[in-house]
Amino acid sequence: MNPGTPPLVGQMIDIALEEDLGRGDVTTRLCVPTDARATGRVLARTSLTASGMDVFAEVMRRVDEETSVTWHCREGDRVEAGSRMGEVAGRTASLLMGERVALNFLQRLCGTATMARRFADALPSGCAVRLTDTRKTTPGLRYLERRAVLAGGGTNHRVDLGGGVLIKENHIAAAGSISAAVGRCREQAPHPLRIEVEVTCDRELDEALAAGADIILLDNMTTDEIQRAVKKANGRALLEASGGVNLQTAADIARTGVSIISVGAFTHSAPAADISFLIAAQ
Amino acid sequence: MNPGTPPLVGQMIDIALEEDLGRGDVTTRLCVPTDARATGRVLARTSLTASGMDVFAEVMRRVDEETSVTWHCREGDRVEAGSRMGEVAGRTASLLMGERVALNFLQRLCGTATMARRFADALPSGCAVRLTDTRKTTPGLRYLERRAVLAGGGTNHRVDLGGGVLIKENHIAAAGSISAAVGRCREQAPHPLRIEVEVTCDRELDEALAAGADIILLDNMTTDEIQRAVKKANGRALLEASGGVNLQTAADIARTGVSIISVGAFTHSAPAADISFLIAAQ
Amino acid sequence: MNPGTPPLVGQMIDIALEEDLGRGDVTTRLCVPTDARATGRVLARTSLTASGMDVFAEVMRRVDEETSVTWHCREGDRVEAGSRMGEVAGRTASLLMGERVALNFLQRLCGTATMARRFADALPSGCAVRLTDTRKTTPGLRYLERRAVLAGGGTNHRVDLGGGVLIKENHIAAAGSISAAVGRCREQAPHPLRIEVEVTCDRELDEALAAGADIILLDNMTTDEIQRAVKKANGRALLEASGGVNLQTAADIARTGVSIISVGAFTHSAPAADISFLIAAQ
Amino acid sequence: MNPGTPPLVGQMIDIALEEDLGRGDVTTRLCVPTDARATGRVLARTSLTASGMDVFAEVMRRVDEETSVTWHCREGDRVEAGSRMGEVAGRTASLLMGERVALNFLQRLCGTATMARRFADALPSGCAVRLTDTRKTTPGLRYLERRAVLAGGGTNHRVDLGGGVLIKENHIAAAGSISAAVGRCREQAPHPLRIEVEVTCDRELDEALAAGADIILLDNMTTDEIQRAVKKANGRALLEASGGVNLQTAADIARTGVSIISVGAFTHSAPAADISFLIAAQ
Amino acid sequence: MNPGTPPLVGQMIDIALEEDLGRGDVTTRLCVPTDARATGRVLARTSLTASGMDVFAEVMRRVDEETSVTWHCREGDRVEAGSRMGEVAGRTASLLMGERVALNFLQRLCGTATMARRFADALPSGCAVRLTDTRKTTPGLRYLERRAVLAGGGTNHRVDLGGGVLIKENHIAAAGSISAAVGRCREQAPHPLRIEVEVTCDRELDEALAAGADIILLDNMTTDEIQRAVKKANGRALLEASGGVNLQTAADIARTGVSIISVGAFTHSAPAADISFLIAAQ
Amino acid sequence: MNPGTPPLVGQMIDIALEEDLGRGDVTTRLCVPTDARATGRVLARTSLTASGMDVFAEVMRRVDEETSVTWHCREGDRVEAGSRMGEVAGRTASLLMGERVALNFLQRLCGTATMARRFADALPSGCAVRLTDTRKTTPGLRYLERRAVLAGGGTNHRVDLGGGVLIKENHIAAAGSISAAVGRCREQAPHPLRIEVEVTCDRELDEALAAGADIILLDNMTTDEIQRAVKKANGRALLEASGGVNLQTAADIARTGVSIISVGAFTHSAPAADISFLIAAQ
Repeated sequence: MNPGTPPLVGQMIDIALEEDLGRGDVTTRLCVPTDARATGRVLARTSLTASGMDVFAEVMRRVDEETSVTWHCREGDRVEAGSRMGEVAGRTASLLMGERVALNFLQRLCGTATMARRFADALPSGCAVRLTDTRKTTPGLRYLERRAVLAGGGTNHRVDLGGGVLIKENHIAAAGSISAAVGRCREQAPHPLRIEVEVTCDRELDEALAAGADIILLDNMTTDEIQRAVKKANGRALLEASGGVNLQTAADIARTGVSIISVGAFTHSAPAADISFLIAAQ
Repeated sequence: MNPGTPPLVGQMIDIALEEDLGRGDVTTRLCVPTDARATGRVLARTSLTASGMDVFAEVMRRVDEETSVTWHCREGDRVEAGSRMGEVAGRTASLLMGERVALNFLQRLCGTATMARRFADALPSGCAVRLTDTRKTTPGLRYLERRAVLAGGGTNHRVDLGGGVLIKENHIAAAGSISAAVGRCREQAPHPLRIEVEVTCDRELDEALAAGADIILLDNMTTDEIQRAVKKANGRALLEASGGVNLQTAADIARTGVSIISVGAFTHSAPAADISFLIAAQ
Repeated sequence: MNPGTPPLVGQMIDIALEEDLGRGDVTTRLCVPTDARATGRVLARTSLTASGMDVFAEVMRRVDEETSVTWHCREGDRVEAGSRMGEVAGRTASLLMGERVALNFLQRLCGTATMARRFADALPSGCAVRLTDTRKTTPGLRYLERRAVLAGGGTNHRVDLGGGVLIKENHIAAAGSISAAVGRCREQAPHPLRIEVEVTCDRELDEALAAGADIILLDNMTTDEIQRAVKKANGRALLEASGGVNLQTAADIARTGVSIISVGAFTHSAPAADISFLIAAQ
Repeated sequence: MNPGTPPLVGQMIDIALEEDLGRGDVTTRLCVPTDARATGRVLARTSLTASGMDVFAEVMRRVDEETSVTWHCREGDRVEAGSRMGEVAGRTASLLMGERVALNFLQRLCGTATMARRFADALPSGCAVRLTDTRKTTPGLRYLERRAVLAGGGTNHRVDLGGGVLIKENHIAAAGSISAAVGRCREQAPHPLRIEVEVTCDRELDEALAAGADIILLDNMTTDEIQRAVKKANGRALLEASGGVNLQTAADIARTGVSIISVGAFTHSAPAADISFLIAAQ
Repeated sequence: MNPGTPPLVGQMIDIALEEDLGRGDVTTRLCVPTDARATGRVLARTSLTASGMDVFAEVMRRVDEETSVTWHCREGDRVEAGSRMGEVAGRTASLLMGERVALNFLQRLCGTATMARRFADALPSGCAVRLTDTRKTTPGLRYLERRAVLAGGGTNHRVDLGGGVLIKENHIAAAGSISAAVGRCREQAPHPLRIEVEVTCDRELDEALAAGADIILLDNMTTDEIQRAVKKANGRALLEASGGVNLQTAADIARTGVSIISVGAFTHSAPAADISFLIAAQ
Repeated sequence: MNPGTPPLVGQMIDIALEEDLGRGDVTTRLCVPTDARATGRVLARTSLTASGMDVFAEVMRRVDEETSVTWHCREGDRVEAGSRMGEVAGRTASLLMGERVALNFLQRLCGTATMARRFADALPSGCAVRLTDTRKTTPGLRYLERRAVLAGGGTNHRVDLGGGVLIKENHIAAAGSISAAVGRCREQAPHPLRIEVEVTCDRELDEALAAGADIILLDNMTTDEIQRAVKKANGRALLEASGGVNLQTAADIARTGVSIISVGAFTHSAPAADISFLIAAQ
């Protein structure tokens, strides 16, 4: 896998292989001679943005370390419908045993990258807004899905509950007020973290600005409300629009001048990319 | 969790908690007193089919064993938009720390159940066809996703490469012919397994029938082709239609008299169900 | 290890190494220079059927990746008493540290293969009956032990509770009747699975045949009872004899015409094969 | 489980449950209502020595924490053929799902305890010799199997390569001589460990005694040879007889006055105890 | 453990128990009756700052779930030499088996908290500087050690490589210049993260200020250099002093007006606190 | 890693990498081109005793298998302040991502080795006493820390609760007397283990000698008391001095003629060795 890939990714590959191959592949065992060799082509059946090829290859390698994989695309590349993304060569049996798990990773990751890319392409050109993911990721796949969002032209939001301060309604209620919550966090949170506050109305926005929040998340606001918030903030804080953003609304939201648009769907609702693996005997 | 839940499910919950909470929740630590208590409501924002409530509860329990969860719906129930699915009571901080991970499981599983239910509802009434999942599941979540398909009115296909014999094109090529492949499997596969063969054309269907396959998978055939296959098979084998089935085509395929329709989208492309968790201080 | 070996096998090797070598090998550390090299011969001290050589090699490789292993036998081969199964070359210390764990796997797996082979050899020649294992396997070793049964000329029964339908007395009681239980399973079980019913008397056999069970397990029946069951079934279902089968009774049971004989002892009571590892300094 | 049970035991239970129940129990799901309740009796079908009841119970508890287990015997008790070892009460489905895995542990551990007890009973009465296990244990089960040997009246040999110094032929060769090897270990091994040397002939015995070995392992010697060794050692070292000891030879070896007899078969070749689990609806 | 403790903490407890108790406690097994009960007192032998009591208790609970633990101090409390921190009641054997592992955690965590507290106490009163930890933590204990730093009155630095942007010499070299590196990070890093730059001289400080770095780490500077940096920065960036800070220099550095002092020693060189566990039979 | 390194060491490396790199290295990703290459020098900034270089290298290898590491020192070598311990060559990004975790292991292990070496150097020359560690090790690092003690010229005490018999006050109280406790252990403990008894006064010493203890631990005795104990024992048992030993007292204690001095500080309070990793672009 790519240098620096954390160990959990390998652990998830093992879990996925155990789920599918843990009881052996009875059909392949009975039909395919152990010395038969084949090549497989990874084909994009629709246009997509590529992500996760190293994971696909690692699955194949863990099934059989003698399988070799070559790619014609890199993380983040746009791939045309019908093009060959890569080739796999090795024992036929090994290709058949690894195929499904390898694709299960690749199709999901390309699915996320493709959706992010589609949103990015929908933004007005020259627009400085950034599209980010959220923490609404698939259990076990957060690292990979965030990487797929980068591949699609997005950026990442806070990685976890320790990787950013985000003061929401319940934190405010517990702390007593927005300014109390912001104050405590500014004093005691790790200094590498900015202070972000979620607001749902104009009054809260005023409070958050007054409290000196570094970032303000505008939760489920209309484009008009966002527009007004941008004017009011006037650069005093980064503004993030969140909630129910879709391909239709993204461009209009971007035009408001908001700095960040976060989209949960990248990681919770992206359909799998349509990718085939075609094996041919050598 | 429900009795009999396999240990991997607990392991996936731990992985998901480690991903999100492994570095602590800095905002909650700084804003919420440790003795504050709250209740949270789990709300369906759109109509959905319920699945995975035990996993949601287990996430909450692993964050804080004193959190209690009560449900108003059971696995497989149809839930109206706006209804309350359940309540959570406990420390405010614990609810805030577990919320996202608990929802990440629940929304995905309800998403899968809801899509399966939508397909099931689209079938002609009185139709005996069964809708099944595939092995195109999310790494680490196969057990839960298959259960969600059951919740949505579907049934399960083979659970893994050892839980069914499915002879595909490459197996046939390696074995020499459909009848050779079927013969070997019939002789040597675990006897609790039926022999299924994937065919892509009329000639292969003939061969599979002649070889005595128990089940024949009709790969990517048109409704007309499926119709003809049903007639030809005439009950000699179970027929399964697979490939690109969608909500529009499912009913027509069902009317052909095919026994099984398998749908990869249940587990690879179901959008997350829209579910909120609203916390109120006690 | 052989291509397609599931990750759990590697995990079990790590567990076994941690059990034996987790605190270091104090004797070897103090007596053997780190650069001393040796070769070791794996010797069958009694005749046996070979299984698990890849696991032996993987243990050695995990102790020291520079150790090399060569085999003179393959999975399933009959090995004469006194013959050399393979050779190991590498650091003396590494051979000494890995020896016991490597043998602990190999001796058990050859033990199971050898017992299965002994049963297979005891069957009347030309007899089509198949010998199968059961789920009475050693915790953590099910994959390997089932493979060893194949090596000994057996076949595999259902791999786990999800890899076959087997309706037993308590399922029947809970469902109300054999036909009710068979009916539910036929409707809702994964279609790749046959429906098997366990019966203990003639009346239950009648019911199971009437219900259309695909396979009927004759539990603890005498050879005579089995004989009568075969006649009565007359090909309408596969018949499986189970319970207390031993080397003396296996042939007689086979002659009844039953299709399957399942033997728990393969995996719960096979004595370890007697294999030595003789190290000589280079 | 018993207080102080190491975490690996729980991990092995999870592995065993995942092996058997990881894909769900399709038969039980379809036949048994989730609210049906039952009791199960654990019955010894032959006389045996009990070991591992806490593990059986823990398996049941991990399947369903509401299952309760009661025992009529304790670790090490002799149990008559036909007696009831314990009872289990809970959901019928949970009992059916846990039964096989729970028995797989219990039968193996009782098998080992029973074999150890049989050897212990075969010794001349009043004889002070101790019977010990070896490191020839089942991967993952060493802790439990050693405990079973204690239950059967045996004692334990070194627990692993770090829990004892045992100088064998290859260590001697590498160190140059028995006295060199003993000297190094005496100087540098952890002081809580005695120094044991394996010898195969009279000359080596002399050397080991001269070197001041604390324990001398007589490898594969005849009863006569052992007798002579005992006389020669005359209390200067503990003597351990090892290699091919069986129920016939154990008593004669014991009478030689040797201090320890180690028996690999306890943990590598003990047949599973014959134990049934009979479930009855409540 | 405290609500929200991540699963890795439990995993580390299991690892530590397996290290010490994985082969059983032979002395306790042989000397202590299983029904003997005792109480144990946790005593601070020198004055210390408390941290990790929940981990101590969890170790005891994992050894024996019937052991109960009561504390007289809370996370962050100052404890006088000779005072009783808490009591443990349960089976004598369980207390003896868990004692060492429980103390190994507690002594380390109190050691870190005590050192942090000592530094905090050494600062001039009324000084707003914050003391932070670094990533120089013990493998597997980062979460707990950072919590101990908080207990000692410190705050936390970035939690990991993903929880903060810290541009060091090699990043600058690779990016071409400080301003290039800062620019890229500002554009593409997760927006919840501030941009920190490490500088070693006056010129780099100028560049970092000009590039608009949010935080500037002054690496291994003298107090005078830090003083000048504070003046020059004049509030345009947070300044962090790092490198070789000790109890003698901390106060002087604090008086320079720097915002943050980071101290690696808290987590890499804090001596264990001296804590006893005294058991008395009941 | 060195041959025979147990799997837990690799697991701890993965845990440490996941802690630091599990969310990616955002700074390196944004600043360092993936194809940039560099070399890094591992420098001892103070004089130290080397231990753990194989672990450092393995961390680097797990981050990027193409990184190569060369060492100029071996386990146990004395390294002068300022000398180069080794070099690393590979992708710049990989060096930056692995650096901190690799150093976290290396600095701790060298710290322990260095402290042990300092104690060893403080002993009178020609003195046969051995310095040993204790079970007061860092959770998860016991194997490595004991190895570091060997590197520093120490020897190891019992590895865990199963690797030695050590009868302490509570065991004596539970067994009734020292002689009862020693008797039980002599009869039933694994024969490769010596029997050690902890005593705190002269009377207990007498009892322990009378009971035939193999080793007697003198707990927290003054040098004079130890001296008298040595005379009294007069070679009948190995004597071990323990409790509050420091660099000042070690030599005097050694001169008493005691056989063993055990020092908890080696593993619970050794400050990290000061080691730098300096990266330079190629």
